[in-house]
Amino acid sequence: MNVITTLELKDRLAQLQGQTVRLQGWIRNHRKQKSMGFIDFFDGTCFKNPQVVYDANIADFEAIQALRVGSAITVTGTVVPSYKDPTTPEVQAASIVLEGDCPEDYPLQPKRHSIEFLREIGYLRPRTRLFQAVFRVRSVASMAIHTYFQDRGYVYVHTPLITANDAEGAGNTFTVTTLTPDQQKAGETDFFGKPASLAVTGQLEGETFAMAFSKIYTFGPTFRAENSNTKTHAAEFWMIEPEIAFCDLDQLMDVEEDFLKNIVSTVLEKCPDELAFLDTFAAGGKGTSGLVEKLQALADSKCARITHDEAITILKNSGKDWQFKPEYGQDTAKEHEKYLTEEYFHGPVFVYNWPKDIKAFYMYQNDDDKTVAAVDLLVPGSGELMGGSQRETRLDKLTERMEQLGISAESLDWYVNLRKFGGCTHAGFGMGFERLLMYLTGVDNIRDVIPYARTPMNCEF
Amino acid sequence: MNVITTLELKDRLAQLQGQTVRLQGWIRNHRKQKSMGFIDFFDGTCFKNPQVVYDANIADFEAIQALRVGSAITVTGTVVPSYKDPTTPEVQAASIVLEGDCPEDYPLQPKRHSIEFLREIGYLRPRTRLFQAVFRVRSVASMAIHTYFQDRGYVYVHTPLITANDAEGAGNTFTVTTLTPDQQKAGETDFFGKPASLAVTGQLEGETFAMAFSKIYTFGPTFRAENSNTKTHAAEFWMIEPEIAFCDLDQLMDVEEDFLKNIVSTVLEKCPDELAFLDTFAAGGKGTSGLVEKLQALADSKCARITHDEAITILKNSGKDWQFKPEYGQDTAKEHEKYLTEEYFHGPVFVYNWPKDIKAFYMYQNDDDKTVAAVDLLVPGSGELMGGSQRETRLDKLTERMEQLGISAESLDWYVNLRKFGGCTHAGFGMGFERLLMYLTGVDNIRDVIPYARTPMNCEF
Repeated sequence: MNVITTLELKDRLAQLQGQTVRLQGWIRNHRKQKSMGFIDFFDGTCFKNPQVVYDANIADFEAIQALRVGSAITVTGTVVPSYKDPTTPEVQAASIVLEGDCPEDYPLQPKRHSIEFLREIGYLRPRTRLFQAVFRVRSVASMAIHTYFQDRGYVYVHTPLITANDAEGAGNTFTVTTLTPDQQKAGETDFFGKPASLAVTGQLEGETFAMAFSKIYTFGPTFRAENSNTKTHAAEFWMIEPEIAFCDLDQLMDVEEDFLKNIVSTVLEKCPDELAFLDTFAAGGKGTSGLVEKLQALADSKCARITHDEAITILKNSGKDWQFKPEYGQDTAKEHEKYLTEEYFHGPVFVYNWPKDIKAFYMYQNDDDKTVAAVDLLVPGSGELMGGSQRETRLDKLTERMEQLGISAESLDWYVNLRKFGGCTHAGFGMGFERLLMYLTGVDNIRDVIPYARTPMNCEF
Repeated sequence: MNVITTLELKDRLAQLQGQTVRLQGWIRNHRKQKSMGFIDFFDGTCFKNPQVVYDANIADFEAIQALRVGSAITVTGTVVPSYKDPTTPEVQAASIVLEGDCPEDYPLQPKRHSIEFLREIGYLRPRTRLFQAVFRVRSVASMAIHTYFQDRGYVYVHTPLITANDAEGAGNTFTVTTLTPDQQKAGETDFFGKPASLAVTGQLEGETFAMAFSKIYTFGPTFRAENSNTKTHAAEFWMIEPEIAFCDLDQLMDVEEDFLKNIVSTVLEKCPDELAFLDTFAAGGKGTSGLVEKLQALADSKCARITHDEAITILKNSGKDWQFKPEYGQDTAKEHEKYLTEEYFHGPVFVYNWPKDIKAFYMYQNDDDKTVAAVDLLVPGSGELMGGSQRETRLDKLTERMEQLGISAESLDWYVNLRKFGGCTHAGFGMGFERLLMYLTGVDNIRDVIPYARTPMNCEF
């Protein structure tokens, strides 16, 4: 008999009623009565886990009653109407075979564990309901992102991870070497013949491909050697960086808005059970945290668009007692983003035309000589989710700005040359994938949306 | 008027006949006659590039005739029947506006350049027909891989790139550090509090997720600090590593075969123009190299399955004068793979049950005490394309083997523990993405299927 997944069982539940099926997976919980038993069974292919019921007529009844939580089993049985919930499959077992035992001291007993404890047993936590939900959302959202771009003619580009560029200024990068400290000190030649580090962005290389394919995107890991132990920083995370030729700042905002709503809608559609669980989980296990409502509202919203100056004016006029006083020409703070999205606009907001002194060298310099054509998308409940800009395409303006900031135009000659060789108005944005996932799942620590997080003093598994 | 892409133009060519359209892209070639001109136009969204025709009636005729190869332009004009080829779109221009100029000394003039020269101008080569074909195949194949797994219920897992494990034995890894040589020598604490390197595989972490989701896959970068300057080695490349619970070696071969044929078929279907070009390109620009025929044959083939011992017997009986003499218990050479696939079986071959001494510690040890349940898939024209195995699931056998090979079971306790906590028969394989791309495109140097290759002494762009 062919084994079916619990996903197939759920999808074809009506059709399979009364049929014999075989399932393979693990015991999440095992409740025993004198003459029968109930196994919460999962194989990880869907969030709706079937209940396996057996009674004293089953062969090896006593051995089966002794099966411990965590064990791998093969179940053969009949699909029967569910006792309590018609959408939860139930299987009346004719046989249960132990595939892999699990000891009494298995760390993942069926009770509520602290999220910190689960981090310590990171290799087992994907078996919990929380992380089954989180990591399926991660997978589904990844696919939604690929589908969005591929359906619209974007070419997926794998930009390099090891780089000799220093795109966003010195510091905060990991050195990559094959030399021992002694060899380094002796001036021996390193693997690449020059200093190399892990990339903090693929944008610059992405631009070279946008100047050939018009629409491209990257989706790969990036690295920051930032020594900050916060809930939102990881040393290694995944980033999405689309780059679009013949596209200005306004058109970029159109793309960002359409993209984000599409991803959120797709996850809402494909992961209803996972999101329902996460919604309640974020509320401490009872009621709703408003997660699904928030996502639905975003999918249906229209993003407001204001300049940085307008944002500051709104903040100044708010009558609020700010911890950080909003100022023209200055960066905004978390509390400002929160006010704009949650209290003033009640929805997502694009803030564009940022002071050039707080933004990167490659951004298009506006005529006011003070701002650049950069845009941040702020969303309720999370703050900044994406950052993008129209790129500086004027050769003289670009090199002048690089010089001001001490960035060598010579070492980036290939990037600068894009402005000489058939350059055009182009724009792109970056989105940290884990930031999106925290937004989608309501999970508030980046360590819990990455399979194995890398943070200062932590490189386990 | 809305701009359309050349992809839309191609797809809706019949419908757009006689209509006015606007296109934005670049000049690949510009041929001029006294009273008219012809522009080979591309925007990178499809391989079938339209020809733009203009005559002396166009405004600024002289300025337009002066437009140089490489320039970015906006073309507005009427879609007209094509003079030579009904499937190649032609646009009679009413206006051509220069968006970005390109100088006389633009390196990418319309002539055949050596592939070595194109590597030197790696940031411009995506604009050539060869690399338009290669990198679109790369993007389409990436999506085909994601689609294959997601459609079959696999969860996409991002395994870590920075690791403190040493999965495949010491050496050949890049060190990752934030310390200077002096700080290292002084014993200062590094970012992660212990030595870290770039991952050579995500398999071990992948197994932890397979024990929770049943079917998972990775698709991400991996690294080898191997100092070999060959056509097939890169320091950074992308790898696909599926891992499947409740799966043995036979079932794994079924998955590998179905997967590979699916990807090849999808690329054949989605990239006919690109593959036709690559087929001819690999033949030196004339006739066919047999690329498309080879791919079609693979898609229609049935993979042979033989043990390593059987393979050696076939090789010994071949009557061939081998450079490397085939021996039971020894690895096979390129010439052997070529003979098996191209001369003996005329198709793809799985070779399984390999001598355990030449394979990794985590592979299932067969009862003969000599072989492991490992399998390599060999394909005509490329040799090994995938390598997989059933995993050793018996705790004692695994730790015994680790001890023999000097691999610390303590440092990999989480991996070893998978065998204690509800372990089950499971299997997985790895496929180097660039190896697949070389097979799909007929391009014979790995440097030419990666946007920006990292090899010894080379870390440009």
